[in-house]
Amino acid sequence: MANQILLLTTFLAMTCALVIAFEPSPLQDFCVADTTSSVTRVNGLPCLDSKLAQADHFFFSGLHIPGNTSNPVGGKVTPVNVVQIPGLNTLGISLARIDYAQWGVIPPHTHPRATEILTVLEGSLYVGFVTSNPDNKLISKVLYKGDVFVFPVGLVHFQQNVGKGHAVSLSSLSSQNPGVNTIANAVFGANPSISDDILAKSFQVDKTVISSLQAKF
Amino acid sequence: MANQILLLTTFLAMTCALVIAFEPSPLQDFCVADTTSSVTRVNGLPCLDSKLAQADHFFFSGLHIPGNTSNPVGGKVTPVNVVQIPGLNTLGISLARIDYAQWGVIPPHTHPRATEILTVLEGSLYVGFVTSNPDNKLISKVLYKGDVFVFPVGLVHFQQNVGKGHAVSLSSLSSQNPGVNTIANAVFGANPSISDDILAKSFQVDKTVISSLQAKF
Amino acid sequence: MANQILLLTTFLAMTCALVIAFEPSPLQDFCVADTTSSVTRVNGLPCLDSKLAQADHFFFSGLHIPGNTSNPVGGKVTPVNVVQIPGLNTLGISLARIDYAQWGVIPPHTHPRATEILTVLEGSLYVGFVTSNPDNKLISKVLYKGDVFVFPVGLVHFQQNVGKGHAVSLSSLSSQNPGVNTIANAVFGANPSISDDILAKSFQVDKTVISSLQAKF
Amino acid sequence: MANQILLLTTFLAMTCALVIAFEPSPLQDFCVADTTSSVTRVNGLPCLDSKLAQADHFFFSGLHIPGNTSNPVGGKVTPVNVVQIPGLNTLGISLARIDYAQWGVIPPHTHPRATEILTVLEGSLYVGFVTSNPDNKLISKVLYKGDVFVFPVGLVHFQQNVGKGHAVSLSSLSSQNPGVNTIANAVFGANPSISDDILAKSFQVDKTVISSLQAKF
Amino acid sequence: MANQILLLTTFLAMTCALVIAFEPSPLQDFCVADTTSSVTRVNGLPCLDSKLAQADHFFFSGLHIPGNTSNPVGGKVTPVNVVQIPGLNTLGISLARIDYAQWGVIPPHTHPRATEILTVLEGSLYVGFVTSNPDNKLISKVLYKGDVFVFPVGLVHFQQNVGKGHAVSLSSLSSQNPGVNTIANAVFGANPSISDDILAKSFQVDKTVISSLQAKF
Amino acid sequence: MANQILLLTTFLAMTCALVIAFEPSPLQDFCVADTTSSVTRVNGLPCLDSKLAQADHFFFSGLHIPGNTSNPVGGKVTPVNVVQIPGLNTLGISLARIDYAQWGVIPPHTHPRATEILTVLEGSLYVGFVTSNPDNKLISKVLYKGDVFVFPVGLVHFQQNVGKGHAVSLSSLSSQNPGVNTIANAVFGANPSISDDILAKSFQVDKTVISSLQAKF
Repeated sequence: MANQILLLTTFLAMTCALVIAFEPSPLQDFCVADTTSSVTRVNGLPCLDSKLAQADHFFFSGLHIPGNTSNPVGGKVTPVNVVQIPGLNTLGISLARIDYAQWGVIPPHTHPRATEILTVLEGSLYVGFVTSNPDNKLISKVLYKGDVFVFPVGLVHFQQNVGKGHAVSLSSLSSQNPGVNTIANAVFGANPSISDDILAKSFQVDKTVISSLQAKF
Repeated sequence: MANQILLLTTFLAMTCALVIAFEPSPLQDFCVADTTSSVTRVNGLPCLDSKLAQADHFFFSGLHIPGNTSNPVGGKVTPVNVVQIPGLNTLGISLARIDYAQWGVIPPHTHPRATEILTVLEGSLYVGFVTSNPDNKLISKVLYKGDVFVFPVGLVHFQQNVGKGHAVSLSSLSSQNPGVNTIANAVFGANPSISDDILAKSFQVDKTVISSLQAKF
Repeated sequence: MANQILLLTTFLAMTCALVIAFEPSPLQDFCVADTTSSVTRVNGLPCLDSKLAQADHFFFSGLHIPGNTSNPVGGKVTPVNVVQIPGLNTLGISLARIDYAQWGVIPPHTHPRATEILTVLEGSLYVGFVTSNPDNKLISKVLYKGDVFVFPVGLVHFQQNVGKGHAVSLSSLSSQNPGVNTIANAVFGANPSISDDILAKSFQVDKTVISSLQAKF
Repeated sequence: MANQILLLTTFLAMTCALVIAFEPSPLQDFCVADTTSSVTRVNGLPCLDSKLAQADHFFFSGLHIPGNTSNPVGGKVTPVNVVQIPGLNTLGISLARIDYAQWGVIPPHTHPRATEILTVLEGSLYVGFVTSNPDNKLISKVLYKGDVFVFPVGLVHFQQNVGKGHAVSLSSLSSQNPGVNTIANAVFGANPSISDDILAKSFQVDKTVISSLQAKF
Repeated sequence: MANQILLLTTFLAMTCALVIAFEPSPLQDFCVADTTSSVTRVNGLPCLDSKLAQADHFFFSGLHIPGNTSNPVGGKVTPVNVVQIPGLNTLGISLARIDYAQWGVIPPHTHPRATEILTVLEGSLYVGFVTSNPDNKLISKVLYKGDVFVFPVGLVHFQQNVGKGHAVSLSSLSSQNPGVNTIANAVFGANPSISDDILAKSFQVDKTVISSLQAKF
Repeated sequence: MANQILLLTTFLAMTCALVIAFEPSPLQDFCVADTTSSVTRVNGLPCLDSKLAQADHFFFSGLHIPGNTSNPVGGKVTPVNVVQIPGLNTLGISLARIDYAQWGVIPPHTHPRATEILTVLEGSLYVGFVTSNPDNKLISKVLYKGDVFVFPVGLVHFQQNVGKGHAVSLSSLSSQNPGVNTIANAVFGANPSISDDILAKSFQVDKTVISSLQAKF
């Protein structure tokens, strides 16, 4: 099961594509990512010769295809960020489609570099985010088709399908590469592991509880 | 007809909600726009007391409702930016739903403060953007359901429904308030008018052509 | 004539050098553009070894030389941006000299990445900019020698010589590479063309009017 | 015990003062926060009349005083951000002193708006951060007096005193108000609670385990 | 003479208007500074109701009028920044005209928030800037009419009229409020004074030399 | 003695490591500087392959070791910026330890790209900064162990040990590479020299005074 979660997380990671703002501004019309260049790595990605830019560099297809939600959490993310659309490089925005099985969840996570704005395309979702310390106030709501909700940059948030069938949402994120830290995976599934002594103290439980949690990620 | 276009443009203006990046970063978890405050205007909008923030400040409903495309261009924009969701203030992202009658168009326009990423929800669209001088290269493509396309910040772009029925798209924009300059309205419908002498020289036509164009906006 | 305009536009494009702000900040004293490097393209330009930086990298001469305004619009732009001064790379500012024949115009255009501040050096200019939808309010003024005017980032603006002789202005732009979209060229001179059906709907005119406009750019 | 943690978290929240970068730039020499002004809230804080600025607005004392680590996790944060030093407003940097009892920990947390750079003043610390999905790679090290370590913006990180006595570190953060999300508190101590069904699915455990975790925060 | 210098510096200060980039981006078409508002101070300036914006808010006249160079250094700065043009608020650019008597100088100074790009309108100037420690390399050049030179943000720079008559230059700066620190005034003319012990050590001279320097500012 | 100062300044330069904010945001979890890459120079530094990133890339040791203050000014800076910690690349923060002999000073200087926040670890310091023209107001204070003080970005500031023994402070700076312009060295020690005629006019003294000052740097 740990493998399945890892797999899911891998999709999430390359995917949980939200769009982040506040990135460095573009200094030319566009800077299509040159993913074949291995010569030099930069903040973001190097640019293709602008004369070679074509419509396909700004294009992605398949966002209408349902993701496979047969996994332990019942949620699947299809990312559309600079990895999928090289023309997004330097432009500070990206997308993700999310499919939910009945009662499926997208576990609590943060985007280190993006605010997210989510639109419900099908079904009903219970969503929420938690404010910073010390309040840790939960701001949540049940959403229906056509509803939109905002998750501010860096805050912990989650989604759950609370309707009768499959649900679908589309998220926009204010970064070309927003990143995603799924709490369970980052804390209990880090590789190598965070020591059980630290986690036991942090969560105020026995090390045996920590070990059983770690075994799942 | 000029009135109808003006009306459309009004919707576009408050609407053609794309999301722009590169805005000032937030300096707190969030800064819900206090739209009732008339005391002081700032870059962006003043903030509500954070203790009063509620889920509804981060929420909008109705994005599944088709817009009315009975207007000369056959396109209608439903915006979801900081005007509709006060919680977007300082967060650098927004949305817009666009409905298209058959052969309906969203005329050439620019967003002064945002890159746009468009997803086709229903139907087929012919879309494109034009690069800066001197090349003015048109980068265009026909899109189908589930396709995604990017319009870089500040460049002229347009959409047309080229399928057999109604079409719908959802756009994300890298600004809480991206702005929209519809070319025809800004150039031929400015109020007061740009002088016909300037426009005749700029478009290399007789003033009578300019006058007939201005009469429509 | 289309060629002449194209030529003019080429100058404009490399030129209509205004200065844009809000660019990524420098991370060292300077980063002189290494225009000979073809190894890697980045957002902006790669840097020369700082030890090789010389005064000439921060220098341009000839801004006192009148531009040749013998072209259909009677306006000529001489740009001074990162192309002409490699030391401007990462520094977020540039210049342009503009010469105007009698009644000469700089046609309506936008800078996708810069605010412009214009100073009249000689003669009299009628200038203006148009606000975003839905107001499309024209804010304009006749300027005389020593007058200064501001065009906010991304908004449509224009200039015309309304004095008795030649006129000259100097513009500063808040970007090392502000870009310029001349409306007429981007809309009617795109290559390949934007379809006449889209343009006819957008400007509410017959396709024959569109064709005659396209023939000029 | 939940109360004690809450208390600790409160200190953390107002405290875990790291310094974040990438904030809006200052537009004047300084903008001392006017904390007495309740008239208008802005992104950041309104400014005091600059003529009233005094040395004490840029000053804080007491960072040499040990914090009280008598709490369940054995760690205590003393923050020095814009709340303590109003002159930090608009300037994008802050500090925090952290005291650690023997084996005391600062539980896994993120700063939504800041990178942190930590210096060990006394004792030995085991510290680490976890990369985004899908790798969730733990990058960790044991630090001694005079050692420095970096936690990149938005990533999950933690510290533990692994030496023989008390330990002390000083952190700098790239924001005037970096914020802190302590994972345990945000996830298991949110107010109101995140539903146990969501958490059980997310952490792949029985609801009884979730309930016992929630009881502690 | 100290008074004369102080006076000059006052002009410089409100003036030595260069334009700086990297300021917070605008979140609306424009935000004309509301200089009559004393209710709330913000980073930058509060905005006038956008409906009240007029052409004069984006306008300044008189930049063709020579400044009075009858002062000890023989240089006079006429600033055109957000103080003179309220429409520059949030737009990140400004100007300054500088007049030079024969052999007149603009003493070594820095702009804390702007890069400067200078154009010689009349005469000949010797200009230069000094790189950061440890190199302190002087990059300098003699400029003639029509020449342009760049001073990177934050670096010490200066100008001197080395031609036969009066000289004039126009500077653009990448900030709406770039600020200016004239070295001699900041170091030897601070109010109250920096202690002569500190300055004697810093400049490796007797306190008597420091006292005589301080007497002049 | 000039050599000794030069040497000190060299340390200062590579060191006087403060942390500056307002830098371009990271577009990935981290971008460890690849200091061995000589292929391409960029704004900041190119990135190492992220798979090769190790704890040591985010680490520095030795900040507890006193610097050698046996030099003319009696102050020594130990920098910890992107040169010492490659993992700081793109993250906008850095540190510096400063040691002071009795009555030792850190001469007046500016950081072109950073705000500094200083903490006194041992001893007593007299510190201050000077506001921009025209006020040149000195804002200063005597600090004791545990006191913290802020120097806003780009302003002239200084420190002096006014206690009975050695003093130590730790500074945080809002840039990965803040830069430092020591006034005395930039003005009187530039290489090649700024002409004595310019300096004599600027400081209102005889050229002989200037020559004697230049001889020391």
